[in-house]
Amino acid sequence: MFENQDKTHLEELGEFGLISHLTKNITLTQKSTVKGIGDDAAVLDHAGKKVLVSTDMLLEGIHFDLAYTPLKHLGYKAIQVNLSDIYAMNATATQVTVSIGMSSKFPLEAIEELYEGIYLACGNYNVDLIGGDTTASKQGLVISVTVLGYADESEIVYRNGAEEGDLICVSGDLGGAYTGLQLLEREKLVYLENPNIQPDLEGKDYIVERQLKPEARKDIVDLLKDMDVKPTSMIDVSDGLASEILHICKQSNKGCNLYEEKIPIDPMTYETAREFGLDPTVCALSGGEDYELLFTVKQADYDKIKFKMDFTIIGYITEPNAGCNLITKSNNVHPLKAQGWNAFGASAQ
Amino acid sequence: MFENQDKTHLEELGEFGLISHLTKNITLTQKSTVKGIGDDAAVLDHAGKKVLVSTDMLLEGIHFDLAYTPLKHLGYKAIQVNLSDIYAMNATATQVTVSIGMSSKFPLEAIEELYEGIYLACGNYNVDLIGGDTTASKQGLVISVTVLGYADESEIVYRNGAEEGDLICVSGDLGGAYTGLQLLEREKLVYLENPNIQPDLEGKDYIVERQLKPEARKDIVDLLKDMDVKPTSMIDVSDGLASEILHICKQSNKGCNLYEEKIPIDPMTYETAREFGLDPTVCALSGGEDYELLFTVKQADYDKIKFKMDFTIIGYITEPNAGCNLITKSNNVHPLKAQGWNAFGASAQ
Repeated sequence: MFENQDKTHLEELGEFGLISHLTKNITLTQKSTVKGIGDDAAVLDHAGKKVLVSTDMLLEGIHFDLAYTPLKHLGYKAIQVNLSDIYAMNATATQVTVSIGMSSKFPLEAIEELYEGIYLACGNYNVDLIGGDTTASKQGLVISVTVLGYADESEIVYRNGAEEGDLICVSGDLGGAYTGLQLLEREKLVYLENPNIQPDLEGKDYIVERQLKPEARKDIVDLLKDMDVKPTSMIDVSDGLASEILHICKQSNKGCNLYEEKIPIDPMTYETAREFGLDPTVCALSGGEDYELLFTVKQADYDKIKFKMDFTIIGYITEPNAGCNLITKSNNVHPLKAQGWNAFGASAQ
Repeated sequence: MFENQDKTHLEELGEFGLISHLTKNITLTQKSTVKGIGDDAAVLDHAGKKVLVSTDMLLEGIHFDLAYTPLKHLGYKAIQVNLSDIYAMNATATQVTVSIGMSSKFPLEAIEELYEGIYLACGNYNVDLIGGDTTASKQGLVISVTVLGYADESEIVYRNGAEEGDLICVSGDLGGAYTGLQLLEREKLVYLENPNIQPDLEGKDYIVERQLKPEARKDIVDLLKDMDVKPTSMIDVSDGLASEILHICKQSNKGCNLYEEKIPIDPMTYETAREFGLDPTVCALSGGEDYELLFTVKQADYDKIKFKMDFTIIGYITEPNAGCNLITKSNNVHPLKAQGWNAFGASAQ
C-alpha cells in the first residue's frame, strides 16, 4: 500500500519516540481527565457519577481490509464503534485508550494517517485520548480501543428493561454498511483481476461511507434527553437488527413483533442490495455495522416521539411466550434468528 | 501446539456462545462494579475517588512465543503486566477488560486455558473481569487488556515527583525475566534441531517463572502504606531499570546516581547471565519485564525503610545538570542509556 521511499521508518523513532510524536498535539478537554498520557496510568475523576467502560478490538483481515480502507477512516471508525457502546447505555463518552499493533514495515506516515482519524473522531465527539500502547506486530494491523463514559445512575439504560407493550425504535436506516461492504469487496476483486480498471463507486458515497466511516449516534441520546424520553432498554446495532433485538428480548425476558415494512432502509441500500441479488430486509436484519441505536420506549411516550424523523418505530415488545417474530410485508410471521456477524463462523455474513 | 481431535471448534460455539461459555462462572467482588459483562458497557462507581486506567497489548511473536509459553501462564501474565501499571501509581486495581483475537484453529480448550490464567490472576489480586471482546484473528494470538483502579487523590504517585536527595529504591530483584527468556529461547532452538531432546530447565525454575509468570507488586504498595511512606515518584520496571529511572528523571527534571553494586540481582540470574556471556548488570538495566516497582522516597523516610528486605536502595536523585549516571563497581561513572525493550528496533534486547 505504501511506497517506502522518503518515509520515516518506525525503527528510527522507537516506541517512546513514536508515542511522543503521535501525542504531542493532544489537548484534553474533559473536566474528568486529571492526567492523560505519560504515566503508568491515566487518572480520571467522575465526582460520584457512574463510570462506564467498553472495549472493542479491530483486526486486519477480519474487521477491515486495507485494500479499500483508508487508514484515516479506519482510525475514525475504531473510535466510533467504541463510542457507540457508551451511547447505547444512554451515557456520555468522555475518554478513550487506543492500543495499536502494526508491522514495522508501515512508515510513520501511515500510522499518522490512522491517528488523524482517531483524533478527528475524538475531537468531533468531545472525547479525550488518555493512553494506550503502541507495539510492532508480526503480521497485520491490530487496533484495540477502550472507551470510558459517565452517567447519573438514574440515566443509565440497560438491555434488560423492555416491558410488554413498549415500542421498538431504531435510529437512522439499516443495511447500508453491509451493502457498502459488498460494493467494496466487488471493486477489490475487479481491481485484483485488472489493476487498470478504476473502482466504480460512482453515486454510492452514502453506503460506502456507512461502511468506512460510521457515526455513533450521540445525537439520538441528546435528542431523547431533550424530549424527556428515557428508553426502557437500548443497544447499538453492530451485529444486525435481528441479533440486537434478540439480545434485548432475551435479557428483558420478553418477546417482540417487528414489522418488515417499517424497517428503515435507504433507497441506495435497497437498490444496491437488489443489484447483488440480496434481500434488503436480510441486509438490515443480519448485515450489521450500522451503529444505529435500537431502543424501546413506553407507549405513554408515543406522543413525544411520534413526529420525530430521526428514528422509526418498527414494532413492539410482547410477552415472552409469543416469541420474537418478524411480520413480513405479505403478513407472514417468521421467527427472528440471529444471523449477524459471527467472527468465528465461516457462514455468517 | 494442539491436537485437534476431541476438541471443540470455536465455529461451533460462535462468538456469543464463546463469551457465555467463558464468562459463566464469573463472580464479581468489587463494590465499585455496578454491572459487569452483558451489556454495551460495564458500569463502575468509585464514589468520588479518582479512577485510574491503563492498557497493554500482547502480540504473538512479539511479546510471547507459544512454543514455550503455556497459555495459562500467558493469561496470568497479561493481567499482571496491566495491574503493575496501577500499582505503580500507588493505587488499587479493581477491574479489567480483556480483548482476545485468536485464530479459529485454536480449539476451545486452548482459549479456556488462557482464561484459566486470566481468572487466576484476577482472583489472586481481587480484580473483577468486567468486559471485553472476543474475535477471530487471521494469524496469531492477540491479547489486549485494560485495567481500572482507584485511589484517593492524595495517595496517587506520579513519575514527576522526585526531588534532589530522594533515595531511589527498587523492589525484588532485576534481570531475572530477561535471563529466563534467554534460557527459553535456547531450549526452543535445541528442540527445533532435535525434537527428541527434552528441554533442560533443571534448577532454573525461578528465572523461568520470572519470565513466564510475573507477579505485580501489590504487596509493595500495601507495605509502603503500612509503613506510612508515600513515594515521591514511582514506575514499574517493564522496559529495564535504565529506561525507567530515565523516565522518572526526565519527568521530574532531575538527575540520578545509581550504584551498580547495589542493584539487586538473584544468584541464579547472575549465573545464567554469565553462562550466556552476558553482563548481569546489563540484564538488570536493559532486560525488562521484571515488573518490580522503582520508586523514590524522601531521605527523611530512611529510618522507616532501612531494615526492609522487600526492596533495596540503589541510588539517589541529583540536580538535573549532574545527569543520570551509573557508578560502576570499579567506581567509574557511566551515563545511563535506555536500551530497554524497543518494540520497533531490531537491535533492542
